[in-house]
Amino acid sequence: MANVLDETRYELALANRIIAHEGVLDGFGHVSVRHPHDPNRYLLARSRSPELIEPSDLLEFTLDSQPVTPPKGKMYGERVIHGCIYQARPDVNAVCHHHSHAMLPFCVTGVPLEPVFHMGPVMGQVVSMWDSRDEFGNTNLMVVEPEEGRSLARALGPNWLVLMARHGATVAGRTLRELVFRTVYSHANAEIQLRSMAIGKIGPLNAAERQLCEPRQLQPRPMSRAWEYWTIRLQKAGGLPPAAKSSGSRAKKRVSKGRAKRSRR
Amino acid sequence: MANVLDETRYELALANRIIAHEGVLDGFGHVSVRHPHDPNRYLLARSRSPELIEPSDLLEFTLDSQPVTPPKGKMYGERVIHGCIYQARPDVNAVCHHHSHAMLPFCVTGVPLEPVFHMGPVMGQVVSMWDSRDEFGNTNLMVVEPEEGRSLARALGPNWLVLMARHGATVAGRTLRELVFRTVYSHANAEIQLRSMAIGKIGPLNAAERQLCEPRQLQPRPMSRAWEYWTIRLQKAGGLPPAAKSSGSRAKKRVSKGRAKRSRR
Amino acid sequence: MANVLDETRYELALANRIIAHEGVLDGFGHVSVRHPHDPNRYLLARSRSPELIEPSDLLEFTLDSQPVTPPKGKMYGERVIHGCIYQARPDVNAVCHHHSHAMLPFCVTGVPLEPVFHMGPVMGQVVSMWDSRDEFGNTNLMVVEPEEGRSLARALGPNWLVLMARHGATVAGRTLRELVFRTVYSHANAEIQLRSMAIGKIGPLNAAERQLCEPRQLQPRPMSRAWEYWTIRLQKAGGLPPAAKSSGSRAKKRVSKGRAKRSRR
Amino acid sequence: MANVLDETRYELALANRIIAHEGVLDGFGHVSVRHPHDPNRYLLARSRSPELIEPSDLLEFTLDSQPVTPPKGKMYGERVIHGCIYQARPDVNAVCHHHSHAMLPFCVTGVPLEPVFHMGPVMGQVVSMWDSRDEFGNTNLMVVEPEEGRSLARALGPNWLVLMARHGATVAGRTLRELVFRTVYSHANAEIQLRSMAIGKIGPLNAAERQLCEPRQLQPRPMSRAWEYWTIRLQKAGGLPPAAKSSGSRAKKRVSKGRAKRSRR
Repeated sequence: MANVLDETRYELALANRIIAHEGVLDGFGHVSVRHPHDPNRYLLARSRSPELIEPSDLLEFTLDSQPVTPPKGKMYGERVIHGCIYQARPDVNAVCHHHSHAMLPFCVTGVPLEPVFHMGPVMGQVVSMWDSRDEFGNTNLMVVEPEEGRSLARALGPNWLVLMARHGATVAGRTLRELVFRTVYSHANAEIQLRSMAIGKIGPLNAAERQLCEPRQLQPRPMSRAWEYWTIRLQKAGGLPPAAKSSGSRAKKRVSKGRAKRSRR
Repeated sequence: MANVLDETRYELALANRIIAHEGVLDGFGHVSVRHPHDPNRYLLARSRSPELIEPSDLLEFTLDSQPVTPPKGKMYGERVIHGCIYQARPDVNAVCHHHSHAMLPFCVTGVPLEPVFHMGPVMGQVVSMWDSRDEFGNTNLMVVEPEEGRSLARALGPNWLVLMARHGATVAGRTLRELVFRTVYSHANAEIQLRSMAIGKIGPLNAAERQLCEPRQLQPRPMSRAWEYWTIRLQKAGGLPPAAKSSGSRAKKRVSKGRAKRSRR
Repeated sequence: MANVLDETRYELALANRIIAHEGVLDGFGHVSVRHPHDPNRYLLARSRSPELIEPSDLLEFTLDSQPVTPPKGKMYGERVIHGCIYQARPDVNAVCHHHSHAMLPFCVTGVPLEPVFHMGPVMGQVVSMWDSRDEFGNTNLMVVEPEEGRSLARALGPNWLVLMARHGATVAGRTLRELVFRTVYSHANAEIQLRSMAIGKIGPLNAAERQLCEPRQLQPRPMSRAWEYWTIRLQKAGGLPPAAKSSGSRAKKRVSKGRAKRSRR
Repeated sequence: MANVLDETRYELALANRIIAHEGVLDGFGHVSVRHPHDPNRYLLARSRSPELIEPSDLLEFTLDSQPVTPPKGKMYGERVIHGCIYQARPDVNAVCHHHSHAMLPFCVTGVPLEPVFHMGPVMGQVVSMWDSRDEFGNTNLMVVEPEEGRSLARALGPNWLVLMARHGATVAGRTLRELVFRTVYSHANAEIQLRSMAIGKIGPLNAAERQLCEPRQLQPRPMSRAWEYWTIRLQKAGGLPPAAKSSGSRAKKRVSKGRAKRSRR
């Protein structure tokens, strides 16, 4: 059982680094995953930039976003984003909060983000919008208090992406890899919509197309193709996370084996 | 005769990687070439991201897009794009399907893509537009069924580039290197048109200029200059494909020799 | 006491390189810091591009922007930007002058730069605008004469960022790290505002939100998270400054130790 | 005397690579310099992408753009751009022809390119515009015939930059380094103007400011600061040209010495 946890920790460090390397996360933002053995806990890094996360940086939290063990270092201030979504959505097992420059224009103007190409519906059938002013008035825009986290989770509702006015975006997924896929391709859709609106009126997917595209793109074949691609790109850039301390070397070997199966020559 | 096939396989892996490295292909999309010895077959990779393709990933398909030998791994879902174009167009010997962020705004808005600089006409005299809704109504936008592939090939007609509404683009070429050239420079033209439309009304090439520019830019001199440039850029980034297994070492030596002739100091 | 000065010199070289590596500074522009032991002096490099600055390039200047020791090489022409701000603002201990491509559109059009996301208020509650024409008529736009420097410092007033018409921007900070943080994130805010204005009407932070966000984002936790991120990114790119000559090896060791505390595995 | 020629050849290879590395030249375009000992000749590479040029690729041409010695490889088709400008302008000693994506929108829309920041006037007081249609009607847009080259040189007149409708730009300089400086910063000005026009009405430099800025920015201090910056950036990317064959090792040593004077630690 230790191995599954080790692998999850390695994979969460990897997910942080992939999303940063693909240009969605920068110095801020964070990615979490529900604990593989205990649905009432989740894993999230200590206060550190996503591109630098190592398995040993990962802490365990209750769904109230309290650390299970008193941590040595600082923690992210906006942990409730993760905890409150895990509480509200048993089907969600991974969460990413980010401030992508492709997504922010929609958070700043209120222009609706719509699926404009076949990958777009991985952001879900409907994109939610949340504005801290509606319930909390003037704040520093951070989502720090439990009631703020619960408000955001309510706004997300049954969807997979919520835009946060003047702040950023939060994405959810049923698995960590699904989360990464939804995060990277919703960012790509935003980028394409921005570029399209600069030259004309957009003709987005209709409701039926959205319903047909989302499950199609979340199938194992496209998801694993992208995962291999992102992992090898990160590896070429010297950015893979180091193995965890405890049983890390074993964890790493397994991951390499997984890749080797595909890339063996 | 084995050598020609080996070289074609190496060159197809290289073409995949060049188009990805130049920013046109990302994790998805694919490039194929007609079999050098059998016009009723074509070569295309197993389901894998273009930037990672190795000669050993390449499979042989009939023009009905059926694998000649049962493959071990997964196959691309949209093979019919390639097979149906090879069936309809005996003059086409290489095909690329991609989702470039420069091309997609034209697929999303319906704004016509027009040649705006001297390289632009390598996308052909007329750019075709295809919308899956016209014949198939609401779909998941993937081109998977033979009738979908044939419909797309009909839309391409005698041209060299077809835009696919809410999806991407497909480019054809008489040779693999011509295909790469048409793909990279139609992408550049789209990028320049996007930037031009942001500041004023575009004045594209007229019909006579288009006719004069296309054959001029597809001459051996510009084509080989660009090929050397892209190959060395890819090499500097550590991205050349590994040699094929069978007679691969020989294939690689020949390619290196070809380059050495030019870059020897 | 020598150590504090050595560390300041190393950190100033590092700050120059970080701001360049993050895409704000290019071949021109400069960063200075007030002398750690003498508030009537400041440290600034000899005439050299920021990305290349080494601790041994740093010179000492009086607040009249005269070199304390006659320098061997050339000096920046626009030193008075730094000296005059240090004279006018005892609370300012670091200054950066740059020509970022995200900031310049606001200097060229006069469109007000406004905080559009939670990090935006690190540019201060109000952004100042200065036009050399107002007091000096037609010039070569360089800020070289003491009266030009004083005029710019007056325009900055109690704020932290002043846009310079047809020229660039100057940022101030209470510490060197705060300056880097304000510089990188005001640039990010400008980039996001540009992208937002391309698709709709922006809804910026209101006055209360600005007041709440600025101190929140300048707290040690976000500032140190970003500093570690930028430093490691620069290090991966092989861009860290060499240690200073004199007691440089010691200085470097201390810096590494500081980083090691966080990144030890 | 051999040394001056060797150094010029090395510097021309370097100039080609710098302009490509800074994102102005891509696979096409070319840079030439007037022969250091014979004003009736110029040096230009054989048909090869600028980023790959080595000193041994350089050929000698008469001002009629005929090779002095029959070359082994292919030559650029558009040599007359260089020869005709050297004929018409004794004060010009270096020429660059390129197709930068920042410049092309002005060649496609006819929107005037204007200096919008203090570096902008390095493109000259007036930017010329040339359209092949005016004198030659419908062509393939290439500047290949002597009369086409002379027409372009007439359009350039006493200026330093001429935009070519639906094609690209040609820049001139009194020295090779001045040419590189004018080329890179006119490209930067175009980029900033594009971004500015997307958010508002531009307020460019007035005539007096343009006259004061141009000579100021072409002084040795800014020019050598940028040259060191670009050279070291290229070096870090592993892109410096190899030394020439003949007396190349000496040439290289001298260049390194030049740099060492500045960057010695």
